[in-house]
Amino acid sequence: MSEYMIALDAMGGDNAPQATCAGAVEALRENSGIRIRLYGREDVIKANLGDYSDVASRLDIIHTTEEISMEDAPMLAVRRKTDSSLVRAAMDVREGTAQALVSAGSTGAVMACGILRIGRIQGVERPALGVLYPGVEKTFLILDSGANVDCQPKYLSEFGLMGAAFMSSVTGISDPEVRLLNNGAEETKGSKLYKEAHQMMKEQKAYRFTGNIESRDVPFGKCDVVVCDGFDGNILIKLTEGIASAMFGLLKQSLMATTAGKIGGMLIKPSLKGFKKHFDSEEVGGAPLLGVSAPVVKAHGSSHATAIKNAVFQAFNMIKGDVCGKIAQGMEKITASSAEAEERMEETK
Amino acid sequence: MSEYMIALDAMGGDNAPQATCAGAVEALRENSGIRIRLYGREDVIKANLGDYSDVASRLDIIHTTEEISMEDAPMLAVRRKTDSSLVRAAMDVREGTAQALVSAGSTGAVMACGILRIGRIQGVERPALGVLYPGVEKTFLILDSGANVDCQPKYLSEFGLMGAAFMSSVTGISDPEVRLLNNGAEETKGSKLYKEAHQMMKEQKAYRFTGNIESRDVPFGKCDVVVCDGFDGNILIKLTEGIASAMFGLLKQSLMATTAGKIGGMLIKPSLKGFKKHFDSEEVGGAPLLGVSAPVVKAHGSSHATAIKNAVFQAFNMIKGDVCGKIAQGMEKITASSAEAEERMEETK
Repeated sequence: MSEYMIALDAMGGDNAPQATCAGAVEALRENSGIRIRLYGREDVIKANLGDYSDVASRLDIIHTTEEISMEDAPMLAVRRKTDSSLVRAAMDVREGTAQALVSAGSTGAVMACGILRIGRIQGVERPALGVLYPGVEKTFLILDSGANVDCQPKYLSEFGLMGAAFMSSVTGISDPEVRLLNNGAEETKGSKLYKEAHQMMKEQKAYRFTGNIESRDVPFGKCDVVVCDGFDGNILIKLTEGIASAMFGLLKQSLMATTAGKIGGMLIKPSLKGFKKHFDSEEVGGAPLLGVSAPVVKAHGSSHATAIKNAVFQAFNMIKGDVCGKIAQGMEKITASSAEAEERMEETK
Repeated sequence: MSEYMIALDAMGGDNAPQATCAGAVEALRENSGIRIRLYGREDVIKANLGDYSDVASRLDIIHTTEEISMEDAPMLAVRRKTDSSLVRAAMDVREGTAQALVSAGSTGAVMACGILRIGRIQGVERPALGVLYPGVEKTFLILDSGANVDCQPKYLSEFGLMGAAFMSSVTGISDPEVRLLNNGAEETKGSKLYKEAHQMMKEQKAYRFTGNIESRDVPFGKCDVVVCDGFDGNILIKLTEGIASAMFGLLKQSLMATTAGKIGGMLIKPSLKGFKKHFDSEEVGGAPLLGVSAPVVKAHGSSHATAIKNAVFQAFNMIKGDVCGKIAQGMEKITASSAEAEERMEETK
């Protein structure tokens, strides 16, 4: 089995470096096809690794002296802090010493690193951050989840391509179904941005677009990719968290109001655990940054070891499934077909 | 006690005219300060009223020969179908024979009637449709809920004014707290539209603006009015419905998976009813169309008698609280302060 080298920012995230070190060791133990480079202060990393002799041959530690904090201005920090754990990891990915980047650090800094240090795939205008959403029927990708709050229609069409490439590579779905978030099913629905995006998505031939999806249907997981701008993606994800939390609170309150409710509540506790697990971000793995020329996974800031391990596995699957190659090929198709469309426009003039 | 005349479109809604007729009679029985005019086919209305002799002195039937259906193009239908129940009701409100309009018919047609037949309040650029959202702490208004998908910053600032006027009139809150939906708490957050709207809302002095609210906090009801464009308002409302429905489904599934869950589920059934009631639109009453010169309430298309009754009560409270007068006064303040701001801009040039 071929080995893939994953660059892991040991210093990023609320629980770093304990969670990143423990997650790295877990990932190596569970998947022998993975090699990991941990970037950060060598002494701190070593103090947190515990006994890792069984996987030591596949784990390198790269000593770095700086860190990018949540308070740093992302673009500036990524430009100036050249010996930070995040930037050093990204530079190694750019140079090919590692094939993918994983970090639980600041979202802005990870994005800036992807764009400035690793670089965009040719033709891609805006890299976007995907989030896996646990739908009732299946888990699907929301793209963009918050990176690009002001979008043009062509960005949304690109998000469709990148999302389809990710889902086919990582989950193995042969022809992922892409839909556009909208306030109605008909193609005449929506704001100017979404109406124009719908037309562009309908005309392209690089991925399977099956029309609009209304917010009401989003939680059910009726497609593989939901495309929207970053402002609306943020609403989808944060409102879901808010409602789930509000509903658990109200449910508890309703149950505590009566004796039967209290007894019933105790009996259903184990069932509720399975129910809660459905909404657990630890299980999912991390947000892929799509549109840059190597796989980048942004793990949640509050990630514990399991979430870091799952983020590493996701990066592994992205390398293995050649997500970036698929996006590059798709971009060529999209560019070719929009050139054709422009030619037709010229002829009819 | 003074009596207010409410014009009720008897033919609008999925359950019309049974629900509208029954709702009208219920409203009259419960509130002796109300008079109702029912618009529609006289024979059909009479057949659905049952025995209403106890309230007959406060109920008029206005015979009309046309109806506006869900298939009609709203603007066109409102212009052409001059003897439809909805247009006749709106014309009487314009002429002052009635003080408010209630309809469970097509949202587009009710909006068009408000704008074309009743007319906007001076200075208001875009009337908007509010929806009352049952937050955990309190019920609040989302404005706009879907009428205006493409907005300019000044429309959002107007929505703040109209929402505050509604909440103070109808719920009696003395100085309602207005917040702007956004993807972060800081005023530099958001898309271009929301950033500019934030600045305008901060500068005006017609209502109390207390900053941004993130989607995650929306379900908790931490303010009285949430301002957003109609596209995002639609997401807030429809996604909430979708998640509530998905969560009930998953909860049921989790409970049915084990014997303890099944027994517990039976015990908590009464508690769940109270919980479900929290999300029940029947209780709420209808969506106010704000910015037109008389109170207009759009009841839900699937309204039964109780929902119609509550929509009538809401219209009654809007007349009594002089929502439209408050909006008109606030618009003067907003117009004056933006004229001042423009003058300052000129002086500094």
